Amino acid sequence: MTSPSDPSRAAASPAALPDTDTVLARIADVLATRLPANGGDPASSYVAKLFSKGPDAALKKVGEEATELVMAVKDGAPDRIVAEAADLWFHCLVVLTEHGIRPEQVLAELARREGVSGLAEKAGRNKA
Amino acid sequence: MTSPSDPSRAAASPAALPDTDTVLARIADVLATRLPANGGDPASSYVAKLFSKGPDAALKKVGEEATELVMAVKDGAPDRIVAEAADLWFHCLVVLTEHGIRPEQVLAELARREGVSGLAEKAGRNKA
Amino acid sequence: MTSPSDPSRAAASPAALPDTDTVLARIADVLATRLPANGGDPASSYVAKLFSKGPDAALKKVGEEATELVMAVKDGAPDRIVAEAADLWFHCLVVLTEHGIRPEQVLAELARREGVSGLAEKAGRNKA
Amino acid sequence: MTSPSDPSRAAASPAALPDTDTVLARIADVLATRLPANGGDPASSYVAKLFSKGPDAALKKVGEEATELVMAVKDGAPDRIVAEAADLWFHCLVVLTEHGIRPEQVLAELARREGVSGLAEKAGRNKA
Repeated sequence: MTSPSDPSRAAASPAALPDTDTVLARIADVLATRLPANGGDPASSYVAKLFSKGPDAALKKVGEEATELVMAVKDGAPDRIVAEAADLWFHCLVVLTEHGIRPEQVLAELARREGVSGLAEKAGRNKA
Repeated sequence: MTSPSDPSRAAASPAALPDTDTVLARIADVLATRLPANGGDPASSYVAKLFSKGPDAALKKVGEEATELVMAVKDGAPDRIVAEAADLWFHCLVVLTEHGIRPEQVLAELARREGVSGLAEKAGRNKA
Repeated sequence: MTSPSDPSRAAASPAALPDTDTVLARIADVLATRLPANGGDPASSYVAKLFSKGPDAALKKVGEEATELVMAVKDGAPDRIVAEAADLWFHCLVVLTEHGIRPEQVLAELARREGVSGLAEKAGRNKA
Repeated sequence: MTSPSDPSRAAASPAALPDTDTVLARIADVLATRLPANGGDPASSYVAKLFSKGPDAALKKVGEEATELVMAVKDGAPDRIVAEAADLWFHCLVVLTEHGIRPEQVLAELARREGVSGLAEKAGRNKA
């Protein structure tokens, strides 16, 4: 994916960050197995426990993690920004899973809006 | 990526959702071009305008979009859940871009935590 | 209310801050007149306009203003902390008004929980 | 304060809701005693424990409680709206206390903005 013709992506080398392309989908796969209907065990899994508390529990975490991301950014702490963004996206995936929505649907919506779905980005667009 | 041995992923067919694997990275590529330092033009780009308002503007959007995702979930409206999650992730990407952080770093952190970085997921893990 | 035996309250002198005791109730009185049912005019009133957009509009503001309060605190800017807390409480009042709830009900709930409803606080309590 | 000439305030009778006028100030008085500098004991007080975790702990609660208020409103549950608004205001008071700000300052700012500081509201104003 990263090539000499795509210099802006050089920082994310395949060696350093293997498999990031499908991380959201893979996590969604795991999260689905934690649903009560799929036998998720609240005693052994954080997410199964979250599911068992009802849908508000994960939503509350979304609000909390969004706030923590904001605080990490205000502190100018790159490691914490990465960690808190990960927390926020993770709990978004939990919420999506609870509602039978795949992250690929969110990504497809983003691709559609931002016009980055194809190999070549449309010239002259300025939405983003 | 989707294979007979991975039935949970069947819904996200490559035909229906092309290129979702690299959507976040592609959007980050575009967002970087909207930075003031890279000549982003507030007059023609929503993101360049957001950048020009200072870092709090994008953070405020993160808080707002997290709230809107919560509301869409409470309304049980799948299309709006997808749309609001897309809004939230998009503004997270804006914030990351403002701080020189790539989405791949967040995805790598998620992969590390959730143990989904390799081809085979570790048996017996129960963090998620 | 402020007396020699209550030194911690000395800063809020009646002269400097007249009528703060009933500010929330007075604002709620005004907000009620902005409801569509009471003839609130979206063309001439910010709140009437907010009401006219439906209940999600004010909720979105609650999420946004909570985020702005967090940012002001992280910036250590006292004037902005006061201003953003005012924004947040104001939009809470808007939401309460939309649902026929008086601020006095919230204050009574706080008084009940915190044991500060009477003239003498209960000895030995430690909830707060 | 409630009089025949102020019918809109009749619902909040002094008998039903004693002392709500000064609830915020009274809670702020109590919260100040929970500060580490004032000998607040994390072992016996929820707020002293919150203070002992550093300022981000209370801010995180603001984000979380704002989200919970939004959820209660979406559920159309009046009792929970009151309870969650109380939670949110309470944690705002905790944050204010941590920064040496009195609730009366926020109320005075609201009074100033909304023009409800005097006995008679200004005629013709339409900000709210």
